[in-house]
Formats: sequence, C-alpha cells, structure tokens
Amino acid sequence: MKERVLHLLKQSCPEFISGEIICRNLGISRTAVWKHIQTLRSSGYGIAALPHAGYRLLSVPDRLYPEEIRDGLGTEFIGRQVYYYEHAISTNETARELADRGCPDGALVIAEEQSGGRGRLGRKWFSPYGKGIWCSIILYPPVNPSDAPPLTMLGAVAVARAIRKVAHVEAGIKWPNDVLLDGKKICGILSEMNAEIERINYLVIGIGMNVNVEEFPEELEETVTSLKIYTGQPVKRTVLLQEILKEIEQLYKLWLQNGFQPVLRFWKEMCVMLNRMVRVNGIKDVIEGWAEDVDEHGNLILRLGDGSLKGLVAGDVSLQGGFDLQAGRREGSSL
Amino acid sequence: MKERVLHLLKQSCPEFISGEIICRNLGISRTAVWKHIQTLRSSGYGIAALPHAGYRLLSVPDRLYPEEIRDGLGTEFIGRQVYYYEHAISTNETARELADRGCPDGALVIAEEQSGGRGRLGRKWFSPYGKGIWCSIILYPPVNPSDAPPLTMLGAVAVARAIRKVAHVEAGIKWPNDVLLDGKKICGILSEMNAEIERINYLVIGIGMNVNVEEFPEELEETVTSLKIYTGQPVKRTVLLQEILKEIEQLYKLWLQNGFQPVLRFWKEMCVMLNRMVRVNGIKDVIEGWAEDVDEHGNLILRLGDGSLKGLVAGDVSLQGGFDLQAGRREGSSL
Repeated sequence: MKERVLHLLKQSCPEFISGEIICRNLGISRTAVWKHIQTLRSSGYGIAALPHAGYRLLSVPDRLYPEEIRDGLGTEFIGRQVYYYEHAISTNETARELADRGCPDGALVIAEEQSGGRGRLGRKWFSPYGKGIWCSIILYPPVNPSDAPPLTMLGAVAVARAIRKVAHVEAGIKWPNDVLLDGKKICGILSEMNAEIERINYLVIGIGMNVNVEEFPEELEETVTSLKIYTGQPVKRTVLLQEILKEIEQLYKLWLQNGFQPVLRFWKEMCVMLNRMVRVNGIKDVIEGWAEDVDEHGNLILRLGDGSLKGLVAGDVSLQGGFDLQAGRREGSSL
Repeated sequence: MKERVLHLLKQSCPEFISGEIICRNLGISRTAVWKHIQTLRSSGYGIAALPHAGYRLLSVPDRLYPEEIRDGLGTEFIGRQVYYYEHAISTNETARELADRGCPDGALVIAEEQSGGRGRLGRKWFSPYGKGIWCSIILYPPVNPSDAPPLTMLGAVAVARAIRKVAHVEAGIKWPNDVLLDGKKICGILSEMNAEIERINYLVIGIGMNVNVEEFPEELEETVTSLKIYTGQPVKRTVLLQEILKEIEQLYKLWLQNGFQPVLRFWKEMCVMLNRMVRVNGIKDVIEGWAEDVDEHGNLILRLGDGSLKGLVAGDVSLQGGFDLQAGRREGSSL
C-alpha cells in the first residue's frame, strides 16, 4: 500500500495531490494515508504536506528501494520480487539462501553495501554504501551445468548494453564476463550455481557495478573505474538497474528460445579482446596465444604458437605487451 | 576421550579391562572413566562392570557412530571428520550447509534416517531408520564444473567395489551412477555442487544405500532391493561404510593424479548396460540407441538408428525390450 501511495505522489508530481483523492483511490482512511506518508518520509522521501492542498513529492532518496526498482520496470519476471537490504555480507550468499528456500524465478537481491562482497575465484569486491549496484538475480534455467557459461556471459552483455543505453558510453566486454570502460573494470559478474550433475537447481548471477564510486582502495586504482569517474557525472542507479533487469529478461528469453548464438553475437560485438595476443591465467597454468574466437559454449579459442587451436573454459585474461585492453585503439599501437 | 575409552574396551574384548588400567592409559580419574562408561551405555553399548575385574564390552549397537566409523578406518582425509545425526532431513542438505561454513575436505555427514531424502532430479529417497547408509561426503575438487560427472561416477565405482568386497555379490553399475543387484537398484548417488563457472566451490557426493532394509513401499518393490533382501543376511553397516570411504579415497586420489581413465576402466568393467539397446529419458526428450561407450567426460555414447553417434550428458536409462537390466544374462534372452 505504501508503494501505491508513493505511486500516486509520483503521478501527480510536481503538483499536490489531496489526501482525499489518495483515500478514494486506494480505499483507505486519512489516518492510513498519513501513516504511509510518515513511513515514506522516514525512508528518505521528501514530502510536503499542506492543509487543503494535500501532499507533494519533493525528493526521492538515492536508494535502490524495491518500490523504486519496480516502478515502471515492465519486466515479466526478472526483478518482480525484490529483496532489499541496507547491508549484506554478499548478495550472492543471500540469494543462495533464498533460492534454497525456493524464491521466485527472476528474484532480485539488492544491498546498499556489502561487507564481504566477492568477485570471481574468491577475490574481494569493494562495495561501498550507496555507490554501486551490488545485486544478485536468481534464475532456474532448465539446463545442465555445462550450459551455464553462456548465462554468465549473457549477464555481461546485459550490463554493457544497459550502460551504453543509460550513460551513453562505450562499455566493452572482456572474456568471459568483465565489463570495461577504457580498459578498466567497471563491472564484474560472479555467477554461482547449485547443481546436480544433470541439471542446474538454481543459478545466481551476481553483479557488482561501480556506478558512483568516487575513490577506490589504492591497489585497485590502476585496474578499476566507475561510471561517475569516467563520465564526471553521477548516474541514477535505479534507472541503470532497471535497464539491466530489462536487458537480462530479453536476453534470457532469447537464449531459452534460440540458444546462445544470438546472445553470443552481441557479446562478440562488444568484446575488446578478440583478434589480439592474450595471456590467460588458468586454474593450473598460464597460456599465451592469439584470441581467435569464442565458441558456442563460451570457450575462448586460442591460436597457440605452433598454430594449433586450444579452447579454454575459464581463466583471467590480460593482453600481451601491457595489460591495457584499450591499447589497440591507440594510434601507432603495436597491436 | 569417550572414543579412547571405547577403543580400550574393544582392544581387551572379550576380556575385562580394569578401571585402573584405563585410568593410567588415558590419564583420567576413576570417576571420569565411570562417566564415560555411562555415556557409552546410554549410546547403546553393552558394557559389563565387575568389582575387581573392571569393564568388559558385551555388545556394540547397530549405529553408525563416528567412533565406530573412524575405528580402524585408516584413510587420510575421507571420513576423518564425521557429522553424525540420528535424524536429518537430507544429509546432502546438511552437507551443503557445513561446506558453506568451510568444513574439512572429505568430511562425512551421516544420518540414521532421513525424512526428506532425495534422489536425482528431486525424487524422494526412502531412508528408514538404521536400515541403510544415508550419507554425504564433502569434497573440494580443484576443477571446473564440467569435470564433475566423473566424480559422481567415481562414487558408483567405490560403492560397487565395496559391496563386492564386503558382501561378495556382483554389484553392477547403470549409467551414470546407480548401483544394481540383479537389475534392481541397491544404491543411488546424488552429487550436488556449488560452483562458479570456472571452479567447483564444493561437491557433495550423497550416497543412499539400502543395506538392511526389509520392506519397501509398494511402488518401489519392482525396481529396488537391499543387500539383506538379496543375500538373506544382515550386513554390518559400519564395515561396509568404512570400505566405501576407503575406496572413495583411493579412487579420488587416482583421479587427481591420473585423470578419469583408470576410474572409468573400473566403471566399465562393472557396467551392466554397455553394448545393448537402451532408452534414455533426458531432460527434454527420449532417445533410443545402442549403448556403445562412455567417453572420458562421462557422456554416454549412443549409436542411433541412422548409424550416427550421439553423446548424452545425463538421463534415465532403461533397457529396451523390458526394463530388466539383467535380462542379457538369462539364457534365451532376446537381447
């Protein structure tokens, strides 16, 4: 009901809406309306109240509240159920607990900050309060675990497309699923699954996106950036998140219907490391080669020194001759 | 300490051991010894106590107590840590919770009964009190998720070998990991993993083995059996479980060092469905063909009607022309 009161306030904004109209619209008492207004205020909404005129929305807090995310979202199932936390240890961890208990397909877990945010391979993920999109989406894809890599790459495509649409900057993708701006990481995706051998029970796509982060720990400065640092402008997180959710839904449906190829095409268009010499740090060894292609399972296909091809399932990629992924765009680059 | 008192009682069995000797051996008081004896008795151990003579072990309860499992186990890490429950909803579920909190590699979760025991694909698993081995083993294999199928097949090999060794009956394997006696299922294995795209965080091998079950629900009677029903003899569960744990450790080390081929060789030797016409119910469709081989990823290779080969990752297999997997052994069988 609070959400519906808020919706009416937004509809009439910047005008006043009378308490009377709210009462009639929602079939609740004046006292009830007043209570909801107070709740909204305590959540950070600026709401003016004038006798005879009614209520007017003055400001919306910079929070990823469920009602803000859902307002105008228009998806069918992604993000329809939102679990919001001021603080989480890790949204992926919370998401897994919720999935264990059987939360809806497409449910979103969001936190304003994470104290134990994780990246791939157990690395830490810097997730300061209110500055990023630290979220996880729960999916129940009807496939077996070896089909999972496309889903995490789908996440990267969704994020890169959303960034391009909302912030109008050329986000690129590094295999398998980092999103970059100017060679620096702006978003990492950590997909985790609970699976039997023959089916995925659930998949969690964790997204850590540096939206309005202004400062990073020193050890990250070289390799990481944020949308605000890159563009010089703060970006409205709710708008960006909504776009990401819409993109995920579209791409996920596309994948379910037509397989990975169409999504992979988007991925390749935005990839910044194909047709270059790369070094891949795998679980067991380091391999260098020419990044020739990515196949329909999401494997990176390297052309090795002896001319043979090698498919890699996973690893950390860096460009040879310097780790700057944008190097190829510079004039006179040796790549 | 209770475990050490028990160990001394077993060592001296069937003779008495004096309280004095126990005290000296373990450096504890007579009162302490007495307390441990009482605890053991309340756990079901029969212990005689005579003034001047001391204590004598009369009987060991038919329970899978950690001290019984560890006694003489001799493994390096599999089953060194035992989490024992009279009752669990599902040992796999408990195992996953323990793994989330970082329990040791090779830890064993065991329950005398499960109220929500599960088989593959979410099916129920009948797990009556004290009649079977309902357990889960937690592993942290340093590989990525697509390497998991061999591990679940390894579990089937371990179980089949242990049954052959302890009960001297010809247990067979049905792809991927059911263990059969006379065409009926005696053991199912449910492997679950928590994984990122590029590595397994942990793998749980769940084993549900009908050891001394005497009666099954009607709907299972046709397809399921127990060691006791098959052999007419009750089997000591601790002995069988110890053998399974030893086998798993050996095979797991073999796999880590030499890959899947040696384990697969064992698997094929015991497989009862290769070189026969089979029907496979997959996630999406039903496929019939000649079961020609299992490859190094654990895929079942079917020769289809048109002569082409097809590799299957997962599915339920049944033999064509009747679902009796032993049919081929009968004289005059049409297979």
